[in-house]
Amino acid sequence: MSDENAVYIGSKPVMNYVLACITLFHGGKKEVVLKARGRSISRAVDVAEIVRNRFVSEATPSEIKIGTEPITGEHGSTINVSTIEITLSKE
Amino acid sequence: MSDENAVYIGSKPVMNYVLACITLFHGGKKEVVLKARGRSISRAVDVAEIVRNRFVSEATPSEIKIGTEPITGEHGSTINVSTIEITLSKE
Repeated sequence: MSDENAVYIGSKPVMNYVLACITLFHGGKKEVVLKARGRSISRAVDVAEIVRNRFVSEATPSEIKIGTEPITGEHGSTINVSTIEITLSKE
Repeated sequence: MSDENAVYIGSKPVMNYVLACITLFHGGKKEVVLKARGRSISRAVDVAEIVRNRFVSEATPSEIKIGTEPITGEHGSTINVSTIEITLSKE
């Protein structure tokens, strides 16, 4: 899947990401993929729920994937961080 | 599904919940369901990833559901909180 319809969830306010999703759907995308890692994972779920409950009622979470990514720190040490990808699809 | 194989993720250290999952699998359960809400959602993903990558390699996340639950506060106000349910299944 291309990154054109991906929304990367960071530490900004939830509504910023909600707006990004709505913009993609209104621009004609049938699928929007929310990607997050670490502590932003719960924010990604918030975004998905707010989008479908309040703004784009036809959108449903069609696929949810979780995974692990190694991150190399400043001193060369590697830690693992959890990731999530939530695909919201309009029927 | 009964609650016998549910692990509720709160704010304790991740390894506490990892141990709870391992215990259930070793006790013969074929499925363990991790349930979390709010900020604990990212911890639930951590638990699922650690269990399957480090301890129970046959376990895969067979189903991941997200949702919203209304919570009534002390003063009668209601806020919505996101939830996740991750089902880990042994093949």
